Amino acid sequence: MAIPCPPFIGSEKLSIESGAMSPSSPSPLILTQDELKKIAAYKAVEFVQSGMVLGLGTGSTAKHAVDRIADLLHQGKLKNIIGIPTSTKTHQQAVSLGIPLSDLDSHPVVDLAIDGADEVDSNLNLVKGRGGSLLREKMIESACKKFIVIVDESKLVAHVGASGAMPVEVVPFCWKFTQDRLQNLFDYAGCVAKLRTDNGGEKIFVTDNGNYIVDLFFKKDIGDLKVASDAILRLAGVVEHGMFLDMATTVIVAVLIEVEGSLLNFGSEFYQERRFRGSRIILAVEQSKLIALHSGLQDEVCPSVAGVECLLRALFFLLMVEVNSLKELFYCLSLEAEGRHGYNRLFQGPVKFSIGSTVALKVSENVYGLV
Amino acid sequence: MAIPCPPFIGSEKLSIESGAMSPSSPSPLILTQDELKKIAAYKAVEFVQSGMVLGLGTGSTAKHAVDRIADLLHQGKLKNIIGIPTSTKTHQQAVSLGIPLSDLDSHPVVDLAIDGADEVDSNLNLVKGRGGSLLREKMIESACKKFIVIVDESKLVAHVGASGAMPVEVVPFCWKFTQDRLQNLFDYAGCVAKLRTDNGGEKIFVTDNGNYIVDLFFKKDIGDLKVASDAILRLAGVVEHGMFLDMATTVIVAVLIEVEGSLLNFGSEFYQERRFRGSRIILAVEQSKLIALHSGLQDEVCPSVAGVECLLRALFFLLMVEVNSLKELFYCLSLEAEGRHGYNRLFQGPVKFSIGSTVALKVSENVYGLV
Repeated sequence: MAIPCPPFIGSEKLSIESGAMSPSSPSPLILTQDELKKIAAYKAVEFVQSGMVLGLGTGSTAKHAVDRIADLLHQGKLKNIIGIPTSTKTHQQAVSLGIPLSDLDSHPVVDLAIDGADEVDSNLNLVKGRGGSLLREKMIESACKKFIVIVDESKLVAHVGASGAMPVEVVPFCWKFTQDRLQNLFDYAGCVAKLRTDNGGEKIFVTDNGNYIVDLFFKKDIGDLKVASDAILRLAGVVEHGMFLDMATTVIVAVLIEVEGSLLNFGSEFYQERRFRGSRIILAVEQSKLIALHSGLQDEVCPSVAGVECLLRALFFLLMVEVNSLKELFYCLSLEAEGRHGYNRLFQGPVKFSIGSTVALKVSENVYGLV
Repeated sequence: MAIPCPPFIGSEKLSIESGAMSPSSPSPLILTQDELKKIAAYKAVEFVQSGMVLGLGTGSTAKHAVDRIADLLHQGKLKNIIGIPTSTKTHQQAVSLGIPLSDLDSHPVVDLAIDGADEVDSNLNLVKGRGGSLLREKMIESACKKFIVIVDESKLVAHVGASGAMPVEVVPFCWKFTQDRLQNLFDYAGCVAKLRTDNGGEKIFVTDNGNYIVDLFFKKDIGDLKVASDAILRLAGVVEHGMFLDMATTVIVAVLIEVEGSLLNFGSEFYQERRFRGSRIILAVEQSKLIALHSGLQDEVCPSVAGVECLLRALFFLLMVEVNSLKELFYCLSLEAEGRHGYNRLFQGPVKFSIGSTVALKVSENVYGLV
């Protein structure tokens, strides 16, 4: 059975402009989380065209995108870009890089915004604002024709609030009263509301708009997000919250996956037994479509990693082409983990893997999974 | 047919503590709008009890209530009151009057709030904020067990925005963008959005919370208010709006009605022909119930106004006891204006009158209506 290497993830799609990441490197890649963020950011900037009005995001991931846009401007590869910064911090960064800037009052329609997120759920709903810029980000990103969210795998969550705070910007007047009302609103989800301080100290954190932030920590899923959103916004004293619902048009995820296992008996160069471990795959996903894949597998049997890499590509391809959203992808992966999906025909035994953590290809009885 | 003077609008209910307004004055009362506001305010303060935590409203009507509360405190008729002011202005007024103050952080449950409104519709929905204090007012008044709204008749409207601006508090950041989005949101109602300036000058009006106010002027009814409310609140950049929906538990309206006409053939002292003109009736309405009535009719035939006054009381009583809300009252009055209601049996011909403007009792062919 021949498994074609999908054309859209061919070598030209794999070129990631970072000297540190050569796809043909035989040694395992040790990529930091920041490098993963950079991969997602650079991939997003590929969508930028000359003449665009661009929303410039805030945060450690978005910073890479702003840097990259400035590079392309200076190289002459992009022209006539107008940036709309989402925070005073990004404003400063963009000014220092020489990106021409404006604001929503002058440019109420934004062609494209690129920004990070603190959480992305399976419906592409986001949590933002752990950096404190949620209001301006939401204003700008709700005025966009296209909004690309760039995250590393650590931001993928099963539900909003699963990885930490859901921030709410509130007016300083009687903030404690508002904090209590917010906590009571989500009592059913074991909510704990905490006023944000500067670096956890005594001094209250103040937003660019002179407001405070109450961080909501949920013990459980809060349920219908639109209902929750309206309930929060109806509280007088709330300025905005960090749930960005139905706003992201594309999410690019840089996924780092450790692989350890072996593949057996596939009868061609690619399908010889291959043992591999300590390997990593970087996956950039545009909503439903795999738009970049890069791996650095260490093959125990053979120094060449081409076979395993291509097989993994094919596996991802098979998954990707069938899904229409991250939700489906997650569901697909979940089925896969239970061995119910059918792609196992590629392998001898059930295939187990998960996104955002460890992939184990359990292909025979003596090969163990790492999930 | 005897028409009893309803016991609950007997003389003790008519005592309005203002030297200028004696119910038995035979000459027409010339009451200013401010005096009407005072009547409503004083009536509301009758609900205040010692030991209460009180929301203190802002504006020309609420000011009378705050003054009255201070008077009763100084007279020893009220004790242990804690006031929660809804603006810095009211805070200053209350401090100068010696009313003990606190805030929502220390007293998150408010027993009673008394405040004015810019508009009251037939469902007791309010428009507030033309004075600029909508946010703090809404925070405090949404924390109340009971919220009494005090208005003069000029604030009664058929629909929100019918008499002027519906204010929206917005963050200063890109206010023009937010203003445009607000205007577009109500394009179907011919909305015009205007940034508020200080006294209509060049300087932008700034709220107690450091925000701006965009005033929305509607040419038509905006329809479902809850839908409109959520749509406004969902715009990032909006802090709060001036529609107070389902918040007022009681509305007290001081109504000034001019009466000119005559009553005929009712066969008792009260039902003799009476011609009267240039007269006024002050009506305080607690939601569905007439709680005070005061008139100063000038009778052309007879110097005593008791008969006409009592008849009008009875008419209002008959209307009041059948209605459960201001909406029903309005509907009732509207039917009455069309002569379809049945209360006309009290009179010879159709009865015409309207609330908030002129009452005409058309009781025979030679008596004309003034509606």
